[in-house]
Amino acid sequence: MKLSQLTGALLGLSLLLPLAVDANQLPNPAPSRPQNIVIMVGDGMGPAYTSAYRYFNDNPDTEEIEQTVFDRLLVGMASTYPARVSGYVTDSAAAATALATGVKSYNGAISVDTQKQPIPTIMEKAKQRGMSTGVAVTSQINHATPAAFLSHSESRKNYVELANKYLETDADVMLGGGQKYFDQELLAKFDAKGYQILQEFSALESIKQPKVMGLFAEVQLPWVLDDKDGHRLSTMTGKALELLSQNPNGFVLLVEGSLIDWAGHNNDIAAAMAEMDEFAHTMEVVEQFVRQNPNTLMVATADHNTGGLSIGSKGKYAWNPEVLKGLSASIDTLAAAALTAEDWQAPLAQGLGFELDPALLEQLTKARMQGKETLASAIKQEVDRRSNTGWTTGGHTGTDVQVFATGPGAELFIGNQDNTDIASKLISLLPKGQRAAQ
Amino acid sequence: MKLSQLTGALLGLSLLLPLAVDANQLPNPAPSRPQNIVIMVGDGMGPAYTSAYRYFNDNPDTEEIEQTVFDRLLVGMASTYPARVSGYVTDSAAAATALATGVKSYNGAISVDTQKQPIPTIMEKAKQRGMSTGVAVTSQINHATPAAFLSHSESRKNYVELANKYLETDADVMLGGGQKYFDQELLAKFDAKGYQILQEFSALESIKQPKVMGLFAEVQLPWVLDDKDGHRLSTMTGKALELLSQNPNGFVLLVEGSLIDWAGHNNDIAAAMAEMDEFAHTMEVVEQFVRQNPNTLMVATADHNTGGLSIGSKGKYAWNPEVLKGLSASIDTLAAAALTAEDWQAPLAQGLGFELDPALLEQLTKARMQGKETLASAIKQEVDRRSNTGWTTGGHTGTDVQVFATGPGAELFIGNQDNTDIASKLISLLPKGQRAAQ
Repeated sequence: MKLSQLTGALLGLSLLLPLAVDANQLPNPAPSRPQNIVIMVGDGMGPAYTSAYRYFNDNPDTEEIEQTVFDRLLVGMASTYPARVSGYVTDSAAAATALATGVKSYNGAISVDTQKQPIPTIMEKAKQRGMSTGVAVTSQINHATPAAFLSHSESRKNYVELANKYLETDADVMLGGGQKYFDQELLAKFDAKGYQILQEFSALESIKQPKVMGLFAEVQLPWVLDDKDGHRLSTMTGKALELLSQNPNGFVLLVEGSLIDWAGHNNDIAAAMAEMDEFAHTMEVVEQFVRQNPNTLMVATADHNTGGLSIGSKGKYAWNPEVLKGLSASIDTLAAAALTAEDWQAPLAQGLGFELDPALLEQLTKARMQGKETLASAIKQEVDRRSNTGWTTGGHTGTDVQVFATGPGAELFIGNQDNTDIASKLISLLPKGQRAAQ
Repeated sequence: MKLSQLTGALLGLSLLLPLAVDANQLPNPAPSRPQNIVIMVGDGMGPAYTSAYRYFNDNPDTEEIEQTVFDRLLVGMASTYPARVSGYVTDSAAAATALATGVKSYNGAISVDTQKQPIPTIMEKAKQRGMSTGVAVTSQINHATPAAFLSHSESRKNYVELANKYLETDADVMLGGGQKYFDQELLAKFDAKGYQILQEFSALESIKQPKVMGLFAEVQLPWVLDDKDGHRLSTMTGKALELLSQNPNGFVLLVEGSLIDWAGHNNDIAAAMAEMDEFAHTMEVVEQFVRQNPNTLMVATADHNTGGLSIGSKGKYAWNPEVLKGLSASIDTLAAAALTAEDWQAPLAQGLGFELDPALLEQLTKARMQGKETLASAIKQEVDRRSNTGWTTGGHTGTDVQVFATGPGAELFIGNQDNTDIASKLISLLPKGQRAAQ
């Protein structure tokens, strides 16, 4: 029996045990209802991303193609369409509203309904039950996805309003970027509320208890491809789990691999695969936490699909991810460096991991004269050509996304569901009744 | 509890009952092992196709978006990569080989391994057990997918060799296209073997027992969009089920919506959605058969993803399937008619269901002068623009595909699996041991 089959069997087992046999007869039975919930969102991570990541992650020197954490934990899929008024293709705000509240709304909505009235979120319901809450993301902490879990606004663009509203959330852990939106006056208010406020990533390690707000970048965190500190999302997630699990009433944590989506918007396959790699690593951290804390449910999904990514393009039956492993920095960074340096050709070739033949060099030289964006775009096209990667848009597409789960309740997510069903199921798994906040 | 959740719960139930409680205590328990297996392949039907079909099928005048048979029956996903030698992107032959035998091979292989040696297929194993076998497809019956289930060849292109080899398959029902590959001499041999040979679709209704070979077109059947007889795949499938279920030892039937893939190769979204509609209808026919014959397992999947289809493109967060409902014939047919008629503009506009404004008319007039392919391509681009549909390739892409199942054993297909696992699981569900052929 392969692991994937075993997963299915175990999922079925945890579902049926209460009905069928006395769970106490089995060794170490998992609880039927989780104490802790970890919701993971790979922003923009449609099915092509997890398939591509399998091949990116593959060791071509072995006969087998190595399975990924996505392969191990797949249980179902979810539709992502927003409220009727916004058509069939969602933005991150409407999708996050669906995942946080169980209600469809218009594109741009931050946990308000189509009448612009606030809808209670799973984080608020968790707080009412005395649980802890937290977010760990690679965007600014007040970006659409975390914002819809923590707060409410008529528009995702109201970053400053959302930052101020975070004072009322009582969230125990908020880790990501966003210094730009939290001025000294606002930070003083978070300080007065007892938050430890961090701006240096290295300071996170020493934090031993909530509450903590870590703003580790002006806006979003650096691309994984450019990140010398490495593994920020998994580090933040590990710390969030450590801090939140101090509450005996349990917790709800949102983890978002935000920049998968940003790489998709940029049609940058190298950046996308590097962000996927860290998101996969972060899922493994949570998977390990679930193994050690079997009262924890992890559900991972995407809010939508970005870029119309395809594994293969232009009639060729091939995809060559080894090209992507040669890049030593993001294309944005390489293009910026090539723009300012006089001797730019050799360093660019070295950064890309392939030689620039005369035709390509001529093309890049022309693009360079038109500025960084044009140069970066020309480099991306060459990387797409070599890897045979396809894109259809700089925006989102409406393909269903996958759902991954492990822990008590995971079986509820088997099969097809709507993104609002994910929230409804998670909310139904919260403890019954309300308790005083801790 | 929504239907999707119920499906998950029931799947879990059927999995655990033999282990957990005496199945006889429950009313009308489903058997744990199927007598009959229906394998359905939506050729090229990646995740974007089933999502797009939900929105194509949606009634925009209702608040809810109607669920489809794909939504009801989703249980998992499958990876589709071929043997290492062919990279990460499969063709239909290697994929069908995987689905028919459980073994990966090279692109082009018809149930032979990478050493070009024949691999036993599920159809051959079924025959060894005294079961009946059949195929019902909209391509020629000796096209890659049905060929890999019924026979063996070094190359999918060996159509005449495969047609001759079909004499040895002892298949009970073969329905589709392919008159071109079966000359009178060969047909006489099938006749001598006791096959009823049909070339008129209307003759199918009167057939009351196997064996039957129906070749209803020179090569593939007509596009659903052009098909005045309507519902050919579901009609062929219904007849195949009627004939094959006469064998008390059970049967294995392959059903393929072959032209979903052909529409994808053509980047023709209107044709693709019409083919999807008939495939969905055919799945409903099989679903109904499973309800009435609970000893039948249906597993549906795609062999790969075609065209890099995306729901939304070029930065716009929208998809407008209502455009596609206006077409009264396939774009190929409309373009062919527009090419030969003198007064072509008004009929083309009527066939497309939208007006040709002056700019578009100028563009189509130019394209028309360059011939049918260019004209058809220009029309497709306009339909893509209006519906906001994206494509990245005229070939295949490597995204995982979905797996749908209902009936005894369906729970084995929950979660992620490889396409070879699908075959291995199905083969494991065949009766143990060999019986003399009927």
